[in-house]
Amino acid sequence: MKILIIDKMHDSILPLLEAIGCRADYKPEIDRNLILSIISSYDGIIVRSKTPMDAEFLERAQHLKFVARAGAGIDNVDMEAMSKYGIQLLNAPEGNRDAVAEHTLAMLLSLMNKLHLANQQVRNRVWDREGNRGYELMGKTVGLLGFGYMGQAVAKRLSSFGCRILAFDIFPQKHAYEDVEIVDFDVFKRDTEILSIHIPLNTENKLLINTDYLSQFPKLQYVVNTSRGEVLKLSDMVAMLKDGRLKGAALDVLENEKLAQLNNDEDKVFGELISLDNVILSPHVAGWTFESYEKINQVLVEKIKNIV
Amino acid sequence: MKILIIDKMHDSILPLLEAIGCRADYKPEIDRNLILSIISSYDGIIVRSKTPMDAEFLERAQHLKFVARAGAGIDNVDMEAMSKYGIQLLNAPEGNRDAVAEHTLAMLLSLMNKLHLANQQVRNRVWDREGNRGYELMGKTVGLLGFGYMGQAVAKRLSSFGCRILAFDIFPQKHAYEDVEIVDFDVFKRDTEILSIHIPLNTENKLLINTDYLSQFPKLQYVVNTSRGEVLKLSDMVAMLKDGRLKGAALDVLENEKLAQLNNDEDKVFGELISLDNVILSPHVAGWTFESYEKINQVLVEKIKNIV
Repeated sequence: MKILIIDKMHDSILPLLEAIGCRADYKPEIDRNLILSIISSYDGIIVRSKTPMDAEFLERAQHLKFVARAGAGIDNVDMEAMSKYGIQLLNAPEGNRDAVAEHTLAMLLSLMNKLHLANQQVRNRVWDREGNRGYELMGKTVGLLGFGYMGQAVAKRLSSFGCRILAFDIFPQKHAYEDVEIVDFDVFKRDTEILSIHIPLNTENKLLINTDYLSQFPKLQYVVNTSRGEVLKLSDMVAMLKDGRLKGAALDVLENEKLAQLNNDEDKVFGELISLDNVILSPHVAGWTFESYEKINQVLVEKIKNIV
Repeated sequence: MKILIIDKMHDSILPLLEAIGCRADYKPEIDRNLILSIISSYDGIIVRSKTPMDAEFLERAQHLKFVARAGAGIDNVDMEAMSKYGIQLLNAPEGNRDAVAEHTLAMLLSLMNKLHLANQQVRNRVWDREGNRGYELMGKTVGLLGFGYMGQAVAKRLSSFGCRILAFDIFPQKHAYEDVEIVDFDVFKRDTEILSIHIPLNTENKLLINTDYLSQFPKLQYVVNTSRGEVLKLSDMVAMLKDGRLKGAALDVLENEKLAQLNNDEDKVFGELISLDNVILSPHVAGWTFESYEKINQVLVEKIKNIV
């Protein structure tokens, strides 16, 4: 089986693929045009996010048996076209769920303890104790929107913090989880104080979380998003943070992450966002740890092995 | 019973004391001289950290039955003199252990995920994903030095992160703890990768943790201190962070927290400390949350009630 790798991967990928009898061409610098011109000679492709696996691409990939996505999100893959051409999708949420869960807790705890502010103050020789009193997670109600690999991994970490954990998912849950209440949306929006978002980006979820949506949560204080930026309308979020309807937000992902290419409106919103103290930001790295970099390879190669 | 309160406390303290039949004078602005001149007419004192409960003070406090410390640390109290005059010490670690544990996790996760750096970068419109890859707590070995209220509360939170938890304490443990290995110092120093400090400040512990001490830990990567700054020699810590012997440190407390009064040597060390990227700092607020502010009162008043 001949596999094309178009994004940068942890070094372990080549020996792992070799061990299951696959030949891989590692071309992290390749561009879309070149990919299109050679993809017909490959049985599989491994991709992070360089280029969309869209209808144009999949039509050219005449011998492709699988697209292996080195991560969890599959919003860059045209599932309809995949199905039309009988190409299988492999992804690796098992490889970065622990990274995402730890980063989610890092962001939430840091925000609630004002650590992002305190750290800067002490570095400026300001030692303000009363101004840096935090809020405890203990006793709060955390609502996990989406209860797949990521939501479940976050729930596991939260289970030792003495908070109430609610989970809402449009897909019925197959198992019961100790410490987690799987609830309907009425209970979810009624009781959630801290909302952590773990849904995929798709047509239904695009900009789902806006002011109208969030206004249904009377007790909402904090929002954490480590899923996809485009599920959350940033201008609405900024407005709610500015006028105090929200106490704080932790965002690893943004509606438009190409900061150098923001249009005027987007730039204005981003400018307001970064002027807010009650916000903590990171550059779409929740799933990125040194450990997940390698675990993702192991998960993908195990799944490729099942196809081989 | 007549009680003097010399530090700022959450508003709940007066009604709580009244409810158990105590009369309290709330004087958060009072200075030491004035305290010394009136203390003989009080049965109890509630103190945060305004002034030491030293021999001079305790000798004057002729009718004092208790010193109630609104917090956990008792390093400002002369226990020998307390014992000589038959004065009882009350403190409230049960009131802020949850705050300390959450802050400890916040600092450690933030440090390992480089969140303190990423947040600043994004605010400067830098979107660097590869540079902000983090390390996972999962699979690491965390050593809790000191396993009292604080160490145990931290262990509880860590128990859901899939790490190995070691605890070492000079006092024998009365209970077994699921998920925690109570170990001797040989195992503790041999296996610890992340050291979290939860010991009190006393004569034995003062500057205990220095280069000699830390050099006994061959696998050590990170140090977290949310106990007392004076148990850790800051100049040694800075040297080990600078030369790479340590990967990072999270310090809520410093050897000298009076930043405006540092001597030349201290100022040089502090300047080096704040120049380091692999350090996260907060101004002695691990135990300070809005919730602990109130919980401490409840714990103290409950203990005062037992004396009344």
